[in-house]
Amino acid sequence: MPTVRLELGARAYSIDIGAGLLDEAALYRPWIGSGQVAVVTNRVVAPLYLARVERALRRAGASPIAVVVEDGEQAKSWETLDRVIGAMLAARCGRDALLVALGGGVVGDLAGFAAAVYQRGIAFLQLPTTLLAQVDSSVGGKTAINHALGKNMIGAFHQPRAVIADVATLETLPDRELSAGLAEVIKHGLILDLEFVEWLEANMAKLRARRPQALQFAVQRCCELKARVVAADERESGLRAILNFGHTFGHAIELGLGYGDWLHGEAVAAGMVMAAELSMRSGGLGAAEVARVRTLIESAGLPVRGPALESARLLELMRGDKKAVAGGLRFVLLDALGRASLRENIDPRLVSDSIAASA
Amino acid sequence: MPTVRLELGARAYSIDIGAGLLDEAALYRPWIGSGQVAVVTNRVVAPLYLARVERALRRAGASPIAVVVEDGEQAKSWETLDRVIGAMLAARCGRDALLVALGGGVVGDLAGFAAAVYQRGIAFLQLPTTLLAQVDSSVGGKTAINHALGKNMIGAFHQPRAVIADVATLETLPDRELSAGLAEVIKHGLILDLEFVEWLEANMAKLRARRPQALQFAVQRCCELKARVVAADERESGLRAILNFGHTFGHAIELGLGYGDWLHGEAVAAGMVMAAELSMRSGGLGAAEVARVRTLIESAGLPVRGPALESARLLELMRGDKKAVAGGLRFVLLDALGRASLRENIDPRLVSDSIAASA
Repeated sequence: MPTVRLELGARAYSIDIGAGLLDEAALYRPWIGSGQVAVVTNRVVAPLYLARVERALRRAGASPIAVVVEDGEQAKSWETLDRVIGAMLAARCGRDALLVALGGGVVGDLAGFAAAVYQRGIAFLQLPTTLLAQVDSSVGGKTAINHALGKNMIGAFHQPRAVIADVATLETLPDRELSAGLAEVIKHGLILDLEFVEWLEANMAKLRARRPQALQFAVQRCCELKARVVAADERESGLRAILNFGHTFGHAIELGLGYGDWLHGEAVAAGMVMAAELSMRSGGLGAAEVARVRTLIESAGLPVRGPALESARLLELMRGDKKAVAGGLRFVLLDALGRASLRENIDPRLVSDSIAASA
Repeated sequence: MPTVRLELGARAYSIDIGAGLLDEAALYRPWIGSGQVAVVTNRVVAPLYLARVERALRRAGASPIAVVVEDGEQAKSWETLDRVIGAMLAARCGRDALLVALGGGVVGDLAGFAAAVYQRGIAFLQLPTTLLAQVDSSVGGKTAINHALGKNMIGAFHQPRAVIADVATLETLPDRELSAGLAEVIKHGLILDLEFVEWLEANMAKLRARRPQALQFAVQRCCELKARVVAADERESGLRAILNFGHTFGHAIELGLGYGDWLHGEAVAAGMVMAAELSMRSGGLGAAEVARVRTLIESAGLPVRGPALESARLLELMRGDKKAVAGGLRFVLLDALGRASLRENIDPRLVSDSIAASA
């Protein structure tokens, strides 16, 4: 079983990757403190995996309760957070209780934030069941809920005690969500690892056919790449920002459409094409490389064009994004395939042109 | 001007104590990053001090916005937090914005938590304007809002960049709130410093007459005592729990009455008498010392009897308190005047008896 270690001093943890890990009581046992465990999951994941996780937790000595929230981005709301916390208080969970996040990125963000603020912070485990969560959102300790005025505006850095990525859960993932996860897989290659980009170009069909070996390798490689970045910059004061490649555009797309019309990965996919176009206009990439990015993203079954939103509207939404510093626009751009950097004060006209080129 | 240093490594900060400090631009200047500053205060404090703070911030180079919330414990709600965050998003505050908490414990807890979760955490300053906040709640980084099922159940440890305690603001404090602050002053003596207890016994009249020198000394001594405890145990995994002396009883009183009927300090005062009674029943204090505690609390104009709540009801409320570990009841008890320790598995009958003795 591949294990990736995230080196964060006192907050270091392991990411275990393999098929069937959800059933392994031994992986839960070290984190069962008082025995009080709350499993947070959603209506789609619960019928598939909740009973198995509860069984493994019981074998590990815990008495789990379950909190099942709605599916989709709307669960990243105060109302749902309040319900999770209310259920834990009603069950008299103390500060030594463990929270387990079982699901995709939404469940991980919501449950991770609940763990961050429940009685000023308790321990939690990430059990990601989507490709997007396994390669990205469950690793690194970013947690958040949404505000009416912006996505992920209320949150915390709160590292899990461990991440248990059972790649067998990807078998039940709808095609559209598999593709959305591939957007983040591609992102890791584009910003950090040309060799991985080449591997993806050669193996995209295997990933879409869900060949277990290919999926396991992709998850492992992404976790290794992300772990290195997070270890160097846990709280996103510098380097870590490169993980937001495509996300400034992507968040503006999601915000403009209302959360949920496009999947996060789909918005990031179109956003990465826009960011590649902007990289070209800012002197980083050549036209052939932009075409290669576009082809790779398309081969993953992802949109390479933005939705029908005016570029002026997208620009306005980006100015409200927390990644835009006061006044000037800030973007992660590619200096080459496999290498990215954060660039300040980008000319808004180049941004508009890049959006137009991706329409 | 006395300065107390809170030694917390990378999160170390200073507590400046003196009259007229709110007007000192030099105290704000080091923390004005981008110039974006949000001052969170309430309807009672705003007319008294907001304009002065805004003027000093402008002199320090900032462009402050103000968010004025309602007065009282009900401001520690999600709705109010959402409003603070919404105002900051509308003003396009970025991650380098500064939040300033101007007010008492409620404002500090609410605004500190807003700073903890706004875009996953921004810098903030505490400007406490009540005695309770100056001697206790503004120091140490505990922030929280309330949940319907319990006080301070949603929160974070988030240290301010600095605390600026202007003791001149205590002149406008209602008598009842001055007394409530004295409860926490007395608490610091009882758990940590017999000499300070003796000083309080000799100087209580001066404190209640608001003699500036006496107030400044009391604030400074409490900050020194608290800083030592917090530096040794920032996240309340051990020693810091002694700061909760009287609070397990006190929170149950507040919860049983509905937040706001009694002031926090009043509930803690009655709670400290109950805790002293329990200390006697558990072998820590003699009857004469319990009487001395009662007399000192009474001399501060504070209640020494609990409200008309059944002791069974208070016990039930305490079991839901986050300071009660799963199952057993946990209390901070006095081993002597000026020395406290955390005790586990206290016999509920002794607790009931102690409540009855304080009724």
